[in-house]
Amino acid sequence: MKTYFPQVKAPIAFEGPDSKNPLAFKHYEAGRKIGDKTMEEHLRFAVAYWHTMKSTGADPFGAATFKRPWNEGATDMERAGKTLDAAFEFFTKLTTPFWCFHDRDIAPEGATFSESVKNLEAMTAKAKAYQQETGVRLLWGTANLFSHPRYAHGAATNPDAHVFAYASAQVKHAMNATKELGGVNYVFWGGREGYETLLNTDMKREREQLARFFHMAVDYAKSIGFTGQLLIEPKPKEPTKHQYDFDAATVISFLREFDLTDHFKINIEANHATLAGHSFEHDLAIASASGMLGNVDANVGDLLLGWDTDQFPSDPREAARCMLIILKQGGLAPGGLNFDAKVRRGSFDEIDLFHAHIGGMDVFAKGLLAAHKIIEDGFFDDFIAKRYESFNAGVGKRIMEGAENFDSLEKWLLEHGEPATKSGRQEMLENVLASYF
Amino acid sequence: MKTYFPQVKAPIAFEGPDSKNPLAFKHYEAGRKIGDKTMEEHLRFAVAYWHTMKSTGADPFGAATFKRPWNEGATDMERAGKTLDAAFEFFTKLTTPFWCFHDRDIAPEGATFSESVKNLEAMTAKAKAYQQETGVRLLWGTANLFSHPRYAHGAATNPDAHVFAYASAQVKHAMNATKELGGVNYVFWGGREGYETLLNTDMKREREQLARFFHMAVDYAKSIGFTGQLLIEPKPKEPTKHQYDFDAATVISFLREFDLTDHFKINIEANHATLAGHSFEHDLAIASASGMLGNVDANVGDLLLGWDTDQFPSDPREAARCMLIILKQGGLAPGGLNFDAKVRRGSFDEIDLFHAHIGGMDVFAKGLLAAHKIIEDGFFDDFIAKRYESFNAGVGKRIMEGAENFDSLEKWLLEHGEPATKSGRQEMLENVLASYF
Amino acid sequence: MKTYFPQVKAPIAFEGPDSKNPLAFKHYEAGRKIGDKTMEEHLRFAVAYWHTMKSTGADPFGAATFKRPWNEGATDMERAGKTLDAAFEFFTKLTTPFWCFHDRDIAPEGATFSESVKNLEAMTAKAKAYQQETGVRLLWGTANLFSHPRYAHGAATNPDAHVFAYASAQVKHAMNATKELGGVNYVFWGGREGYETLLNTDMKREREQLARFFHMAVDYAKSIGFTGQLLIEPKPKEPTKHQYDFDAATVISFLREFDLTDHFKINIEANHATLAGHSFEHDLAIASASGMLGNVDANVGDLLLGWDTDQFPSDPREAARCMLIILKQGGLAPGGLNFDAKVRRGSFDEIDLFHAHIGGMDVFAKGLLAAHKIIEDGFFDDFIAKRYESFNAGVGKRIMEGAENFDSLEKWLLEHGEPATKSGRQEMLENVLASYF
Amino acid sequence: MKTYFPQVKAPIAFEGPDSKNPLAFKHYEAGRKIGDKTMEEHLRFAVAYWHTMKSTGADPFGAATFKRPWNEGATDMERAGKTLDAAFEFFTKLTTPFWCFHDRDIAPEGATFSESVKNLEAMTAKAKAYQQETGVRLLWGTANLFSHPRYAHGAATNPDAHVFAYASAQVKHAMNATKELGGVNYVFWGGREGYETLLNTDMKREREQLARFFHMAVDYAKSIGFTGQLLIEPKPKEPTKHQYDFDAATVISFLREFDLTDHFKINIEANHATLAGHSFEHDLAIASASGMLGNVDANVGDLLLGWDTDQFPSDPREAARCMLIILKQGGLAPGGLNFDAKVRRGSFDEIDLFHAHIGGMDVFAKGLLAAHKIIEDGFFDDFIAKRYESFNAGVGKRIMEGAENFDSLEKWLLEHGEPATKSGRQEMLENVLASYF
Repeated sequence: MKTYFPQVKAPIAFEGPDSKNPLAFKHYEAGRKIGDKTMEEHLRFAVAYWHTMKSTGADPFGAATFKRPWNEGATDMERAGKTLDAAFEFFTKLTTPFWCFHDRDIAPEGATFSESVKNLEAMTAKAKAYQQETGVRLLWGTANLFSHPRYAHGAATNPDAHVFAYASAQVKHAMNATKELGGVNYVFWGGREGYETLLNTDMKREREQLARFFHMAVDYAKSIGFTGQLLIEPKPKEPTKHQYDFDAATVISFLREFDLTDHFKINIEANHATLAGHSFEHDLAIASASGMLGNVDANVGDLLLGWDTDQFPSDPREAARCMLIILKQGGLAPGGLNFDAKVRRGSFDEIDLFHAHIGGMDVFAKGLLAAHKIIEDGFFDDFIAKRYESFNAGVGKRIMEGAENFDSLEKWLLEHGEPATKSGRQEMLENVLASYF
Repeated sequence: MKTYFPQVKAPIAFEGPDSKNPLAFKHYEAGRKIGDKTMEEHLRFAVAYWHTMKSTGADPFGAATFKRPWNEGATDMERAGKTLDAAFEFFTKLTTPFWCFHDRDIAPEGATFSESVKNLEAMTAKAKAYQQETGVRLLWGTANLFSHPRYAHGAATNPDAHVFAYASAQVKHAMNATKELGGVNYVFWGGREGYETLLNTDMKREREQLARFFHMAVDYAKSIGFTGQLLIEPKPKEPTKHQYDFDAATVISFLREFDLTDHFKINIEANHATLAGHSFEHDLAIASASGMLGNVDANVGDLLLGWDTDQFPSDPREAARCMLIILKQGGLAPGGLNFDAKVRRGSFDEIDLFHAHIGGMDVFAKGLLAAHKIIEDGFFDDFIAKRYESFNAGVGKRIMEGAENFDSLEKWLLEHGEPATKSGRQEMLENVLASYF
Repeated sequence: MKTYFPQVKAPIAFEGPDSKNPLAFKHYEAGRKIGDKTMEEHLRFAVAYWHTMKSTGADPFGAATFKRPWNEGATDMERAGKTLDAAFEFFTKLTTPFWCFHDRDIAPEGATFSESVKNLEAMTAKAKAYQQETGVRLLWGTANLFSHPRYAHGAATNPDAHVFAYASAQVKHAMNATKELGGVNYVFWGGREGYETLLNTDMKREREQLARFFHMAVDYAKSIGFTGQLLIEPKPKEPTKHQYDFDAATVISFLREFDLTDHFKINIEANHATLAGHSFEHDLAIASASGMLGNVDANVGDLLLGWDTDQFPSDPREAARCMLIILKQGGLAPGGLNFDAKVRRGSFDEIDLFHAHIGGMDVFAKGLLAAHKIIEDGFFDDFIAKRYESFNAGVGKRIMEGAENFDSLEKWLLEHGEPATKSGRQEMLENVLASYF
Repeated sequence: MKTYFPQVKAPIAFEGPDSKNPLAFKHYEAGRKIGDKTMEEHLRFAVAYWHTMKSTGADPFGAATFKRPWNEGATDMERAGKTLDAAFEFFTKLTTPFWCFHDRDIAPEGATFSESVKNLEAMTAKAKAYQQETGVRLLWGTANLFSHPRYAHGAATNPDAHVFAYASAQVKHAMNATKELGGVNYVFWGGREGYETLLNTDMKREREQLARFFHMAVDYAKSIGFTGQLLIEPKPKEPTKHQYDFDAATVISFLREFDLTDHFKINIEANHATLAGHSFEHDLAIASASGMLGNVDANVGDLLLGWDTDQFPSDPREAARCMLIILKQGGLAPGGLNFDAKVRRGSFDEIDLFHAHIGGMDVFAKGLLAAHKIIEDGFFDDFIAKRYESFNAGVGKRIMEGAENFDSLEKWLLEHGEPATKSGRQEMLENVLASYF
């Protein structure tokens, strides 16, 4: 059988921190128990089909630099088939338990909608066979509603109802494919759901269209018995200047406004959070605090560049901050950590895909180990609990119970005088955090 | 009687666009009717006491540069009195109908809370007399819950209930003063309501504290019969890294989560919107679309600098975009346009305050004129209406009525084929907009 | 003869500010004398072939949306020919006197270097004929050393000398073509001359390679008798994270370090200046103050987005600030104003290209008119001259003549005491500037 | 004798990575030999007097929060004396070998220039005694030419020659004090040497004034026999919008233009580099590649905030990248690593100053250890050397020797055909770097 990754003879193995083998894990040990779950169960890593199998290395100033052997063939479908072959070889050699896809990643757009559907169904069948053979599972599917010119002015938020109809029909089949492949989530990223200028836009109307679309999606999922979690992925500024799903808070606001909170959770991407001016940790915390953190697109942006660079995670401290939030909410399942990340344009070779993923997996393994230890030690939890203890009794407790008002609090204040100030100890806490690495 | 602005002998007058008099309005003509209201009624300009009367020119790298004659005197209260004298001289010479203040702007913090209250009450009485004498009205009052060290870790979101009590008592009196002065709004800007690091913060708890605080404020306003509009002012990043009121969408989400939407509207500041990564126009549109745009802090930031520069408005096109949204929602009243803006550190002289405000008022007058004409002409409204017309009948209408689903839309699509794409005509629309200036 | 722009029957004409015809100039009147030159002579507008004729509307998240009729044909060369046909129809209908190109814009990359050369020579001949027929002239040519995968790690700064050789040979022919077409400038934009990570980069070596390359270019120009101005175009961050030509100051530093200042001037692009954290005006002023401002890429970026959006100029005040610097240095010639700008992805139609250019030309016409009037009035020049007058005599004069030192100045100071501070009057000056629009 | 830091009984000691003592070093072991120098000799840590002793916790939205016991006393000079007492207690307890100061940090501005001089001389004498007693040395002195209102429009670049004279006299005495204290460097940070608007600025003139000022400083240093290194510290955007010393490249350009390169080196501050859009490492590399890296202000900015946050270093990987450049240029001496960093506004207590510095010193100790090991291992150096080897022989060698030209290279190319592309291996290299931590 043809191999696309001949340099990698066997699945990537754990060799420990002292290994000099670039094609081995130094920290990720799938079966190692951390608390009550294995590393694999905690992290639920997924490979993103679009970046890993389909990225070309093109950027706004240059052409494709990746010459993938699986991207050769007489027809689109032949190339799609080879790409799927290569993908499952990659997944199994990398040992990630999950994958994710857009409909148009795995099956080419056809000359007509019907042909696109046929292509997708054919590739879904092929992927299903591979899943059964390899044990690799589908974390989520999604529909690409942003690349084709028809979606230039939006999909569900397009001013033309015809495009809305097209998007609806497309999502129907993407959801079908996700169900067929046992996907445990389905994601919506509204790549063009936003506007460029209010000079030609009715924002109120477009947001109502989008809400209608989500309600239809909920209904359709129910009608076919799809029980996976529905997820919305926030992103600001790209590709549409004003995206309706700017960040976690904006998405939550939207879901509340349109009575959708029971049906959706949020997929937080690190690079999207930072483009919105937040830290990754902040947007995770916002989503988690509302009980709505469902999945993580694990990547990192370059904060000195103003666009979505989708780099592989590289900072174990940030991974630990992420894992702290995830562990404290009891894990991400059915969601997981999807490497929505790509190798640099100058990293031409297939082997670079292994380097990149191995690095990302080790970073999150280190993050998991640190986060678990931090929680076990309890130092930070104790510090925080103590800091807020005035709200657990007396006037603080009465405030939160609704038993005080401005008049009664003034009276209390006049008896108690000026409050003492207390250091927040941020530098000391940062030193303690650093000691975990 | 002592004058603080001897260079300005009489109220600033309208002299028309060809005037070379730097101390005259070129475009702002208070009594001119634009549609059914005068310019003054449309724009409802207010002077911000903190910047205009109290700014010192200090910045993080340098000391105060403004040597205001009203800031001399033996005691804090003597200086406060002179400052109020100067303020009302300024308002009447500038001819703005409104002013805005923080409690600690008009009356100094005392040695004890009670003394602070006494100071505030004394200055409120003095201001009331000036209002009656001059006809200048109060657009809004607010409490400064961010400058004093006790608020370093937040006011309502402080981990110490003692500080919460202090803030409550302080707002009580700020609201009393606002009512006494006939203020038509009361504003909350949560300067330190946010967090620096999750290492010492319980975000969920702090947000609940903040909600409790707002509910108490609603109750208190009711208890004293204050009928002005309550407003929340979003701001990201400053002074606390992660502010809970990041932008309009975040505030709306918060108000929805905690059942506060009936009681609050939003005060959008231009420079805060841009620090959050939005255009001024965008955050206005977000607030207005939810029926929650209540007031505007009319300033502008320097997009090449990463902090709140609070400059006076200078772009008539942006003012027009702002006024378009305001006119279309039927005006801002009881809110208005508050110049939350300061002269540059190197603009030492009292006369510079006049130059700055005159420039800002003329910019918004030009913006109002253009916006009114744009609405009268109807070109943009027609363009937009036509762009979305597919949703007014047929499948588009059925979609919005909930009469379609993914299955029925696929069927419709198979009958109708690929949608045609249409240019959004952004460049042409921008040319038309430019023709209004 | 086939027309590609049937909606535009005749050259765009000046119709004055009150015209409602979207396909007319409101302010640009080519033959109108402003001072001692016509508008056309002052502004020297050029169309950028790459954006206007070759842009596809593709972005990092979506496929081409522009379906240009000239981009159809059986072979690359047939399409190239049609594109040139359309280009000269566009230039003449738009009435811009100049155009600019990259070698690979006008002639396709061939299967071998020799074939590429042949293609370029063929298209150069065809363009020359068009130039003679229409009177349209070439502002500048340049070589595309950044799109092809061979240049992924740089052209002159590539770690592989083979690529350096390729780039050299390519520039040779691009310079030949520029000379053949009577180009009055030749531009270098080092799209990939920078680095992604120091982990694999020898920065010192790469900068020396680049200097060598520029010296060879100077020698080659001399050897063929090309007398046009050589220009370097600064840009930060894109497409390479750390570009060696970050901004005007960095380029000037480089030219000084490698003894190249006699041979090059600088081409300032507005959007590149703002990506570097400067205002457009600032980088123009830096280049002009060193006598090195040679050309302007007239566009504008979106300051709320972090990448090169290359929009058409839209702010007459900014255009005026640009023209002030240009007029004061006696004009740009042999350089000009090149619209390095593209229509938005959603502006699909050929006619949108006219709207965009007409808008940009009118903006600069307004800017020229204002700048000329400002200089004639002399208000700002007088203000500035007066502000620095202390350096024209006495101690100030002696300082600049080198006749004072720290000891003598201390002595002078002890005699003269504390200096008085003077307002910089920024707000007043901004009001005066606003009065020109 | 009075102690200001009673919680710290003895000098901070090295206790190793497993210590849980927050007041111990985990990695910094002053006397440990790394290669041919001790950690102390490599790192040459200095405490910044302005932040550590003089910061108040004030920010643009709030008052001082730090209530330092040394900042109490009847007169400015009494407070200055106590502050110096506390400072040397702090230095010796922290065990940093160096300190740095501005003239106005250690001695208050007097009512007249002469009084300011007297104050400075008195405090210099006191500091000298402390230095002799404790062995703590002065890394550098500098003059504060930006805080006082007289410098609002610049010091050397002020439009008023009177202010230029004042700045000259002030620097004279700051240099005297530095010499008296055996300072091994003298720094210029041009806090207000820039402009706000070209409407009132003659940039060319101001830059010439600045050059004149630097030449005078060189002459003065020579005249008094001061042999320390003169340093210029680049910074963009703050406090003046357009600073003339934007970044390392801009400073180098300026020094070249005005024939000053023999007399100055550069002091790179991490947070200034990132505000300019560069990585810390990049600006270090730029300065070092020109032989001009003289000192480092070791801090870090918050890349999600747009101003100078001056936080203590916290990322050992970034410290390693910094130390790699320093080790490769043979160290920084006579320069060092100055903690130009401050504790957060909410970190009220004196003990927080210890936490912050201990954290920063440990971070750089880890960085030094990793950088030393990286250089010893030689992996990256080998990778880079191999990557550029084509320039060591054949056509590459001839190119750099000036023995090729565009014609000869085209001929060579035609013989050798299309170059092969090679992966830059960035992800793999990043994984190797990560393995050092």
